[in-house]
Amino acid sequence: MNYRVGIVGAGQLARMMAQAAIPLGIEITVLAASSTDGAARVLPWVIVGDPDDPERVRELAGRVDVVTFDHELVDPDLLASLVEAGHKVYPRPDTMRLAQNKRRQREQLSAEGFSMPIWRQVESIEDIQEYDLRYGLPLVLKAVRGGYDGRGVWMPETPEEFERVYRDARKHGTELLVEEFQELDGEVAVLVAGSTDGDFRTYPATETVQRDGICHELHVPARFSASIIRRAERMALQIAETIDLVGVMAVEFFVVGDKVLVNELAPRPHNSGHWTIEGAATSQFEQHLRAVLGWPLGSTALLHPAVVTRNLLGPDDGSDPFDRIPEALGSGNVHLHWYGKESRPGRKMGHVTAYGATHDEADAAAGRAWSILAGREVEVEA
Amino acid sequence: MNYRVGIVGAGQLARMMAQAAIPLGIEITVLAASSTDGAARVLPWVIVGDPDDPERVRELAGRVDVVTFDHELVDPDLLASLVEAGHKVYPRPDTMRLAQNKRRQREQLSAEGFSMPIWRQVESIEDIQEYDLRYGLPLVLKAVRGGYDGRGVWMPETPEEFERVYRDARKHGTELLVEEFQELDGEVAVLVAGSTDGDFRTYPATETVQRDGICHELHVPARFSASIIRRAERMALQIAETIDLVGVMAVEFFVVGDKVLVNELAPRPHNSGHWTIEGAATSQFEQHLRAVLGWPLGSTALLHPAVVTRNLLGPDDGSDPFDRIPEALGSGNVHLHWYGKESRPGRKMGHVTAYGATHDEADAAAGRAWSILAGREVEVEA
Repeated sequence: MNYRVGIVGAGQLARMMAQAAIPLGIEITVLAASSTDGAARVLPWVIVGDPDDPERVRELAGRVDVVTFDHELVDPDLLASLVEAGHKVYPRPDTMRLAQNKRRQREQLSAEGFSMPIWRQVESIEDIQEYDLRYGLPLVLKAVRGGYDGRGVWMPETPEEFERVYRDARKHGTELLVEEFQELDGEVAVLVAGSTDGDFRTYPATETVQRDGICHELHVPARFSASIIRRAERMALQIAETIDLVGVMAVEFFVVGDKVLVNELAPRPHNSGHWTIEGAATSQFEQHLRAVLGWPLGSTALLHPAVVTRNLLGPDDGSDPFDRIPEALGSGNVHLHWYGKESRPGRKMGHVTAYGATHDEADAAAGRAWSILAGREVEVEA
Repeated sequence: MNYRVGIVGAGQLARMMAQAAIPLGIEITVLAASSTDGAARVLPWVIVGDPDDPERVRELAGRVDVVTFDHELVDPDLLASLVEAGHKVYPRPDTMRLAQNKRRQREQLSAEGFSMPIWRQVESIEDIQEYDLRYGLPLVLKAVRGGYDGRGVWMPETPEEFERVYRDARKHGTELLVEEFQELDGEVAVLVAGSTDGDFRTYPATETVQRDGICHELHVPARFSASIIRRAERMALQIAETIDLVGVMAVEFFVVGDKVLVNELAPRPHNSGHWTIEGAATSQFEQHLRAVLGWPLGSTALLHPAVVTRNLLGPDDGSDPFDRIPEALGSGNVHLHWYGKESRPGRKMGHVTAYGATHDEADAAAGRAWSILAGREVEVEA
């Protein structure tokens, strides 16, 4: 018997799945865009090819027991054809289809009664203008699938600006939806796992701190009211049940006053779940592998009073945080996860996780190591 | 900059080091006896060759920043010649020399005043007989280096038996030492780490449960008096300082009544330290890599009230525990480490670790998963 998992994509999520696979006796094969991708650097079994190339994806499927993903950019029709040909593909092609299409997500989740920001599809510029009249500027415009020039979200603040976004999007053939702008009190993500036999489990809600659409920090337990946390966890569980999830999925929520609004689904291990490697009884990477292989799910219990994760982006000064790893590890009890990429300003390079008896303790330890890696002055504690 | 570690040997210890290396951005190359060795199966960089072949060991040294080991069977003179040629080798060649020679260990540690069983070198059969007269049978005979037919320890109970062991050993050219037989009250191992800049840290003492010379269970905290634990930890630290240890080393002790006697040194990650993967702030595998690379050591703090590890041996019925991994994982909150070997009766196949609020809880969880993997009836709890 073998336990062979194929992953489309070979970035940091695949790399951390590769690490989780070793102790479980699971053999990972990745379909990597390049042999220097983070996961390709640490694995003996690598197929180099385009994830859009049906032949390469079929080659991967032919070598493994189940196909899964480290990103959502895979053609769901191709995945459906693999399932028809007798391959196992988890999360299900329908789940991947949903994840790729924000309009479809909103339609389905609205229909099921989940609360989310008021939105509508943009068929013409009048749709945006109508929104403008009703909700005022700024408005949020989102690409229904993907985006262009590395962006998928715009927040025009003037009529001229949103007209420009609209025309640009049309030019790129990008379908848009418009959403009311929310003054956020914060964001929460809930990781939920589903097994092939219908067991669903949520992890404790994660508070995510985002700047410019990039997640910078994770705090667990989330610093929100018990009611907000409970509703987010319940909605994530219900969404997983609704879509019959197999694998791990992150559900991202906006917190606005007392409201918890569904923002987005990401059916795979997710940035917001990195704290689970040290902070939960079963890491999201082990959990995802267990789920897609049809194994029983593991405990999602929180192991420490407080866990904090800081994401490390490539510094603007062009320096390489890699050189500062030993120093960062010497700064306290902190856990580093390096993604194996060349440093470029703004690129996700790795993350550090610290835990402690209190949030302050964990936050300080993560902050110290992060500051060293990022090449910042370490702030002196009061 | 790169962080490249070469490991002589590619068994489970190298495999678990490979796993620990991924998040730290460390690149591991192994010198494997076979491409199907546990670590060779999960790594992109493998040299296949004999660890006794100077050319292969030099090839490994030429590819990496530091050479280390997953077993002690490497010629210390070859290692010393690598150091002379400018390569880094940790633990030091002298430490490896000490580890390989039980007589030398006893001489040096006795001279330093560490308590150990009464012993002497066997020059002739009269040495054994003299021991017999003084301490009575059984006696313990040990091969000074290695052993033969897979054994290195014998406990002859009759004069005829020990004469036979003596003659066999001579025939194999195996030097022996003789030791008083101890009625053990238990065994303790202490893992200690040393950095290149003279920082030494012990992990909490581990109670090891051994049968037929094989370690079956680890219990942390060790169930011995505070005085015994304190003395074992202190001795391990002092021994590490004495030999100027770089890397991780296990010091194994006999507990006899109120006495704590040094039994053996193993300067590498060790079976008795497997619980540290989930149970300590820094696993012994990460710690060893950090130490040999000249990085700061990590915290050795215990993370849970109780941690229990059970080693899994290949079942006598010839069945493969691998097939039972999913079922074992479903039995509770337990962590599996599979070594990637074909199942053979008595072979070390993997281990399971469980932690809990109490020893009973951890012990029960580890026991349930172990029983399933081993193919035993799970004992019903009272």
